Amino acid sequence: MIENQSWGMSDRELYERLRALRTADVDAAVASVVDVAGSAYRRPGAKLVAPADGDALGAIAAGCLDGPVAKLASEARRSGEMTLETFDLTGTRGLGVGCNGVIDVFVEPLDDSIDPMLRSLENGDTATTLTVVESNDSAVPVGARTVCTDSRAETDTTRSALPDDALVELRDAAEVAREDATSTLVSVSRGAGTLRVFVDGVEPAPELLLFGAEEDTGAIASFGSEVGFRVTVASPRGGRADPEQFPGADRVRAVHPTDVDSLVETDRRTYAVLLSHNLVDDRLALSTLLEATEVPYVGVMGPRKRFEALREAAAEDGRSFARAELDRVSAPVGLDLGDGTPTGIAMSVVSEALAAANGAGGGRLSERSGPIHTRQAPGGSAEPR
Amino acid sequence: MIENQSWGMSDRELYERLRALRTADVDAAVASVVDVAGSAYRRPGAKLVAPADGDALGAIAAGCLDGPVAKLASEARRSGEMTLETFDLTGTRGLGVGCNGVIDVFVEPLDDSIDPMLRSLENGDTATTLTVVESNDSAVPVGARTVCTDSRAETDTTRSALPDDALVELRDAAEVAREDATSTLVSVSRGAGTLRVFVDGVEPAPELLLFGAEEDTGAIASFGSEVGFRVTVASPRGGRADPEQFPGADRVRAVHPTDVDSLVETDRRTYAVLLSHNLVDDRLALSTLLEATEVPYVGVMGPRKRFEALREAAAEDGRSFARAELDRVSAPVGLDLGDGTPTGIAMSVVSEALAAANGAGGGRLSERSGPIHTRQAPGGSAEPR
Repeated sequence: MIENQSWGMSDRELYERLRALRTADVDAAVASVVDVAGSAYRRPGAKLVAPADGDALGAIAAGCLDGPVAKLASEARRSGEMTLETFDLTGTRGLGVGCNGVIDVFVEPLDDSIDPMLRSLENGDTATTLTVVESNDSAVPVGARTVCTDSRAETDTTRSALPDDALVELRDAAEVAREDATSTLVSVSRGAGTLRVFVDGVEPAPELLLFGAEEDTGAIASFGSEVGFRVTVASPRGGRADPEQFPGADRVRAVHPTDVDSLVETDRRTYAVLLSHNLVDDRLALSTLLEATEVPYVGVMGPRKRFEALREAAAEDGRSFARAELDRVSAPVGLDLGDGTPTGIAMSVVSEALAAANGAGGGRLSERSGPIHTRQAPGGSAEPR
Repeated sequence: MIENQSWGMSDRELYERLRALRTADVDAAVASVVDVAGSAYRRPGAKLVAPADGDALGAIAAGCLDGPVAKLASEARRSGEMTLETFDLTGTRGLGVGCNGVIDVFVEPLDDSIDPMLRSLENGDTATTLTVVESNDSAVPVGARTVCTDSRAETDTTRSALPDDALVELRDAAEVAREDATSTLVSVSRGAGTLRVFVDGVEPAPELLLFGAEEDTGAIASFGSEVGFRVTVASPRGGRADPEQFPGADRVRAVHPTDVDSLVETDRRTYAVLLSHNLVDDRLALSTLLEATEVPYVGVMGPRKRFEALREAAAEDGRSFARAELDRVSAPVGLDLGDGTPTGIAMSVVSEALAAANGAGGGRLSERSGPIHTRQAPGGSAEPR
């Protein structure tokens, strides 16, 4: 159902839609949150895409900025003009507006300058897009852009690139942003003046690897896809491997449990759940994932007792799991939602995998101190929602 | 997407489909889990509906019982025969089958004897269905059924009712089952012999009341509906109240914040979330829900600071919240999934509301002791998944 809504979409879906708009060479504008002081609905890096025709895609705020952003977007489409607009909502608390921060939004026409970033995501690679959003250096136009991928800095677009000395100064910030998929606004002072550069790190969607293709896999694949995972259903021993049965899955593959690692493409972004309902298959898949991959999260479906039986059986095979290995295992899988229905179990599993993908703990936010919705990517900066 | 799957559906959807099958007088059989010893995928009360044509609806196990249950169902449809079958999976652990328990399943033809229960749910009332699943008393046939609603015991169907003396003996068990929406198997000894009676308590779907009709409400309504909530979107001050915009919502109503209680039909089964993004409206709605209703859960969207501002504003109005009132409030709303995207926030909110509806705490099951997926309805018995 969420698919029908242009607003409530995952980042993954947004970038896929962006790619489609570029392929069709659609006339559109892109608004990005580039900086936030205080609290806001979305973090820097959040994007809204406004095509000339049709609904806007994505969200940079929860309603309150719709009007002014739409106006800037149509100007950007018409004249190609790029604008850095500051929305100060701190004074409006009395009026009851939800967010209470200062939000900098950069609005620009959609053009080929983001293609290298989209290509990088499509290839399963990270990327950092460096964009000049403010400049008092006549030699460097607002909108100048360089996209850094792990292979190189891509500048072969209709927009001018950032000057080399600025790139040198920004190298570390760009690398951190790419590593952590975070976005920040950086000032670069040069002899000729000062640039404000939006350093926008993006990473491909996290992978949800579901080992097991029984009925209960379907709802998990659907929820996983809706929250932005790229979903693979692995069917052990060639049993049920019908893509029709898993509308939420991007891939459905038959695989032997000991070859399940062959379906892991990016270890650190893959979150696995074992639900073959076959203790032997789950045990073999678990050993394989722990030994042959660095997958940070392996959830095991079923009651605690069953996992104990799995460990005993593994021990009888002379395979006992080290503490460091067990730290990667979540058994029983899922958050405690107390719901035994198929959809309730699916939400329990997917919400834990999503928390794991974001380095969050899954408890109640109301019982947690500190800012909400912080991302704890390794070394990443935490930004409140 | 889950809607397309006959298996992964909420109890609410299952009962709606059952009602549709009865209305169309479809030839079908119903298989119910009536007792579980050890661990199993579903609890007693879980049902699978097998129409003569088309896919089975719902689930009583995760695949392993499909074959034998389908066979019993076709017999029930053909001959009207009712069977209580015991599936002992404890011996099969070596074979690796996921569940490791003894499961009693009652299979019967679908007929008018469940109509009083379906009517009760449709009217928003609870019900307990008493069904004889085993009898050595020739006067009492297997399948004899009496449905108890809060108003009366309904027996006006083609099936014979339970004998009065048995009903008297079962009155307390029936009342507990109806209160807690739990299901148990009870033995009733009579002079003439012994009956085994399945006492099946059901309650209407929990209500998710979303106060606020901005863009971010849509994904929350969709997830809420998918996990079985009956979803109401309340649009304050007549702003956006377009049902088209909220495909997941059962009702979209314009309401003044101080009248939001008029949308609460059953206090103890209503879970509210305040996300109008308007501090004044949220404050008025919160006061109204805490004062005029006994709604057990009111989630408040937004950062902690914002809720503090809401409390300060309320205090300035001479309205300070008592501890008992604050115990019903969850601010910031949601489980800690660390995800700031619209779909991630929606899952965070709905997963907490679902946990609240089931008396569960969120948090990771792997870090929790005791059985998983226990239901803690007031006074209810806890049954492991």
